[in-house]
Amino acid sequence: MHAITIPEPGGPEALVWDEVPDPVPGEGEVLVEVVASAVNRADILQRQGFYDPPPGASRYPGLECSGQVAALGPGVSGWAVGDEVCALLAGGGYAEKVVVPAGQLLPVPEGVELRQAAALPEVTCTVWSNVFMVAHLRPAETLLVHGGSSGIGTMAIQLAKALGARVAVTAGTKEKLDYCAELGADILINYREQDFVAEIERATDGAGADVILDNMGAKYLDRNVQALAVNGRLAIIGMQGGAKGELNIGTLLSKRAAISATSLRARPLGEKAAIVAAVREHVWPLFADGHVRPIVDRELPMSDAASAHRVVEESGHIGKVLLVAP
Amino acid sequence: MHAITIPEPGGPEALVWDEVPDPVPGEGEVLVEVVASAVNRADILQRQGFYDPPPGASRYPGLECSGQVAALGPGVSGWAVGDEVCALLAGGGYAEKVVVPAGQLLPVPEGVELRQAAALPEVTCTVWSNVFMVAHLRPAETLLVHGGSSGIGTMAIQLAKALGARVAVTAGTKEKLDYCAELGADILINYREQDFVAEIERATDGAGADVILDNMGAKYLDRNVQALAVNGRLAIIGMQGGAKGELNIGTLLSKRAAISATSLRARPLGEKAAIVAAVREHVWPLFADGHVRPIVDRELPMSDAASAHRVVEESGHIGKVLLVAP
Repeated sequence: MHAITIPEPGGPEALVWDEVPDPVPGEGEVLVEVVASAVNRADILQRQGFYDPPPGASRYPGLECSGQVAALGPGVSGWAVGDEVCALLAGGGYAEKVVVPAGQLLPVPEGVELRQAAALPEVTCTVWSNVFMVAHLRPAETLLVHGGSSGIGTMAIQLAKALGARVAVTAGTKEKLDYCAELGADILINYREQDFVAEIERATDGAGADVILDNMGAKYLDRNVQALAVNGRLAIIGMQGGAKGELNIGTLLSKRAAISATSLRARPLGEKAAIVAAVREHVWPLFADGHVRPIVDRELPMSDAASAHRVVEESGHIGKVLLVAP
Repeated sequence: MHAITIPEPGGPEALVWDEVPDPVPGEGEVLVEVVASAVNRADILQRQGFYDPPPGASRYPGLECSGQVAALGPGVSGWAVGDEVCALLAGGGYAEKVVVPAGQLLPVPEGVELRQAAALPEVTCTVWSNVFMVAHLRPAETLLVHGGSSGIGTMAIQLAKALGARVAVTAGTKEKLDYCAELGADILINYREQDFVAEIERATDGAGADVILDNMGAKYLDRNVQALAVNGRLAIIGMQGGAKGELNIGTLLSKRAAISATSLRARPLGEKAAIVAAVREHVWPLFADGHVRPIVDRELPMSDAASAHRVVEESGHIGKVLLVAP
């Protein structure tokens, strides 16, 4: 088969479409013939040499895919060759075939095209596990999503709105904010021109955000804590603004607030399977209803993953950038 | 009646035993004739002028008491004049009488003397709400308690052991650590001589602490995050080591860990009542079984609250210091 390999870490040109051995499904695993994958920021870090795959994972990039089941390893039940699926991967999605633990497979949701389903596993699992399983966003609460027009952001808006929450977003351009508004976002904050702490305070009559989904880490830590409501929960899923920041524990304590930080990729199989099962139960029905849909900025040939990485690195996109297998 | 008043903030001598008007129970409140109260660090901050009572609370210090129900306000059911009780207070415990919302009353647990029950409301509610309701300590997990010989610490050891957890403590003297061991602590760390991160790592085969109950705030923040296990939870309940500290979000994220910070006093009545009800359900039966007991360092006359504050400020005590009403 072919896969995107990274002979040497570096810029987008470090991604090389090359012939490699086919993967073989082991106990409890499924071989998927990939139709499409999608770009995640972790792929860019991996390409740059800053984020090695966890032990046992494929060395090729790609944390999600859609495709058809091509073979079952020993001990797999509930799936059959030919099933149309999408999957949460620990790596290896930028390839014509990939092996995945059966617990990380999902059927393609009703109403979604097979190719577009590649846009779903990472964003649905990340948003559901953080915003709902960890931070327990409840109806009528306010969720603040940083990077509202990103893949994660566009899914967070849709899920939170579908479940009855009020949604605030930050983004860097009017075009992106307008798109967030179309998806249902109630409070639009241009972070280049406005102070999100002041805007959240104004929009919530001083109460603050009950849950914040943050991809910036250190750069926003102090302001995120300021923007939290009493009993607020800050869920950090990225560190695009650095890893070490000053925490005002006094403010956190006076609000009886909490901070969590998670990632999906390094979790043990059991935790991933539990998240995937929860997503299938709670999120998948929302696609059939039409409440939620995949947001795809563009589709590029997988062999040209370099161009896709350039798009994501320049943050010119809205939603997900797909890589389509030949 | 008499109460400890604070005419001017200052040292222990600022506490003045004076004649004041009796409080009158309002809707949903109960008048308690106080038998004993107990000292909390928040009382010391209030005496120093750094911690004003929340709106509506008594202006006298004292966050807990035991005594007899002396009168019921309108709309109170489930309690009768003469009942022996203890209570979580927003203030006013250093007095001969105090008014308390009915939801913050507890019966004196089976097997506990009325006077000693004054040592229980703050520590049981703080430990239960943080270690169990927020941080969800589970059997066989490891809890690290900073200040193991304090009132909070001695209750945390007992509750965590009664519920099947492994307990590590820090304290500053061999005598205090020996006492923690008698209460059941498994891992003893002298913070003056040992690095608690290294000791926790050694005692858990590198896994770390699943839950940390912390009263130090900024001073321990970075080391607490280092000492956490994967999926670990840091519960901050005090800031004796400062309010602002550097948070390593990268470490937190790689462990999928969480930090919460809470206090009891400023919570709305409904939240306090929910905690008190959970303590009555889950903690009170452990006193009857003999698994858990109040740990009282000494009893002093309430009129001499100044001496009691000196004891607590010098950290010479183990467990709680009681103030006995005349």
